[in-house]
Amino acid sequence: MNKTTISQHFRELQLHICSALEHLDGHATFNEDTWEREEGGGGHTRTLQGGQILEKAGVAFSAVHGPVTAAMKQQLGHEGESFFATGVSIVLHARHPRHPIMHMNVRYFELEDHTYWFGGGIDLTPHYVDLKQAKMFHGSLKEVSDQYSPDFYPKFKEWADRYFFLPHRGESRGVGGIFFDQLHEANSGLDKTQLFNYCIDLGKLFPVVYKAQIDAVTTTAPSAEEMNWQALRRGRYVEFNLLHDRGTKFGIYSGGRTESILMSMPPVANWAYNQEPAPNSEEQKTLSFLRAFHEFC
Amino acid sequence: MNKTTISQHFRELQLHICSALEHLDGHATFNEDTWEREEGGGGHTRTLQGGQILEKAGVAFSAVHGPVTAAMKQQLGHEGESFFATGVSIVLHARHPRHPIMHMNVRYFELEDHTYWFGGGIDLTPHYVDLKQAKMFHGSLKEVSDQYSPDFYPKFKEWADRYFFLPHRGESRGVGGIFFDQLHEANSGLDKTQLFNYCIDLGKLFPVVYKAQIDAVTTTAPSAEEMNWQALRRGRYVEFNLLHDRGTKFGIYSGGRTESILMSMPPVANWAYNQEPAPNSEEQKTLSFLRAFHEFC
Repeated sequence: MNKTTISQHFRELQLHICSALEHLDGHATFNEDTWEREEGGGGHTRTLQGGQILEKAGVAFSAVHGPVTAAMKQQLGHEGESFFATGVSIVLHARHPRHPIMHMNVRYFELEDHTYWFGGGIDLTPHYVDLKQAKMFHGSLKEVSDQYSPDFYPKFKEWADRYFFLPHRGESRGVGGIFFDQLHEANSGLDKTQLFNYCIDLGKLFPVVYKAQIDAVTTTAPSAEEMNWQALRRGRYVEFNLLHDRGTKFGIYSGGRTESILMSMPPVANWAYNQEPAPNSEEQKTLSFLRAFHEFC
Repeated sequence: MNKTTISQHFRELQLHICSALEHLDGHATFNEDTWEREEGGGGHTRTLQGGQILEKAGVAFSAVHGPVTAAMKQQLGHEGESFFATGVSIVLHARHPRHPIMHMNVRYFELEDHTYWFGGGIDLTPHYVDLKQAKMFHGSLKEVSDQYSPDFYPKFKEWADRYFFLPHRGESRGVGGIFFDQLHEANSGLDKTQLFNYCIDLGKLFPVVYKAQIDAVTTTAPSAEEMNWQALRRGRYVEFNLLHDRGTKFGIYSGGRTESILMSMPPVANWAYNQEPAPNSEEQKTLSFLRAFHEFC
């Protein structure tokens, strides 16, 4: 299981997910934008805009290599001269306010001395929280994680709770999910192939759980209030990604490819001063939910 | 000229500017939100939404004090036990794409040993750059600055060019303006009262130059293309403020008052993958302009 094989499988995973999402949307298709990185490697950024279900979606693959930069050293807390990194990143912005935003990332990192690790995560950001759907989502993540280690789901769920959190709002980004980083043989008890398989299984799960979220809702034409709330929650998504998300900040500050990094941005976002939903409204219930921690499984 | 007097004058400046902007808008008025800070002090955040000219505007005054925090020490590179800070911050988001975004900030900072400094800036972010209007704007800033020191405008204009820049886009935020920080007697050649007067004069200039920008344009109902371009440029404004603006980041990461800090956000912002305007379009001309440095006076 070498880096070339891993990146090939990640690329296949990207194509598999895009194909499943196109099938789900039934209207729009992904455009592929291929780019190279001056220092080494490149990627294929696949984006979809104006779908029936998906208003704006990005599914990015990259495999890059080069000398370890000063910014990387600081971020990684690891010594090394040259690195290789490959991964798949996804953010889906659904058109309908009753359909959620969903994100996934799996990544592999290797230094020239063959030190390696895997990282990843899947999290769900509904504009309106539905507890049953959140439980269904977490149940699926737990089921796949349990096949690898009984420790994974509880540990990675807690990690996601800490990670996908907006301290300046006192709110979770959504209903969480799982998040893990710097996972390798010594700290996971699994060998490299098993960890790789875990990432691939999560990747394959992604379009399945997204479809389950979509299928669970019967939508009608959204009200102005629902549209407005969706735009405000998308504003929070922007705040998280630009102020707190380590991947985004690291990418931007270290001179990464801006368009690929910011494909996570929603098509539209709104801000209003001191906006608080009406007491006992559905919007208020969602906000209260996001202001507390929850167990789902 | 002690800290209490300075903060009182800043508060009056806030009210003066709000009154001038209400007169200009002719439709909407500011709401005032008064808040206190647990560690000491507080502020009055004045916001306006849904005006005729101004779609969303914030004019904030604050006067806060308390122990110097670890985050402050790092940011300031200054020793001290307790601080006092007062200032006025403004961001105006105009409704019409042919009207600009405009920002101003004046601030005073003091440590318990009476070490002090002033900071501030005014910058203009047109959705469509008009060279004549940019020159008029810079000319006004130069005129006021020259009354205090011939060094101010050229130095502070260059500082603004460096500060209001999005490295990840290779673009200026707008046509620049002036920016200065940690200005005191020893590094300016002016005494405290003169520096204070400079800040007040800039503050009083703000509604005047904003009105001049508005009056210089004859608007018609905006086209869909103009609206779309405005929303994309507002997205860039969000990116600058959340990724690069030191004031915003410092405020958010050090536990400042989120709603007051993020009153700078536009009402709406859009993102689209790899959006590039058509060759020779007005949008393309604006973008080319923002990708180079310019002298205006």
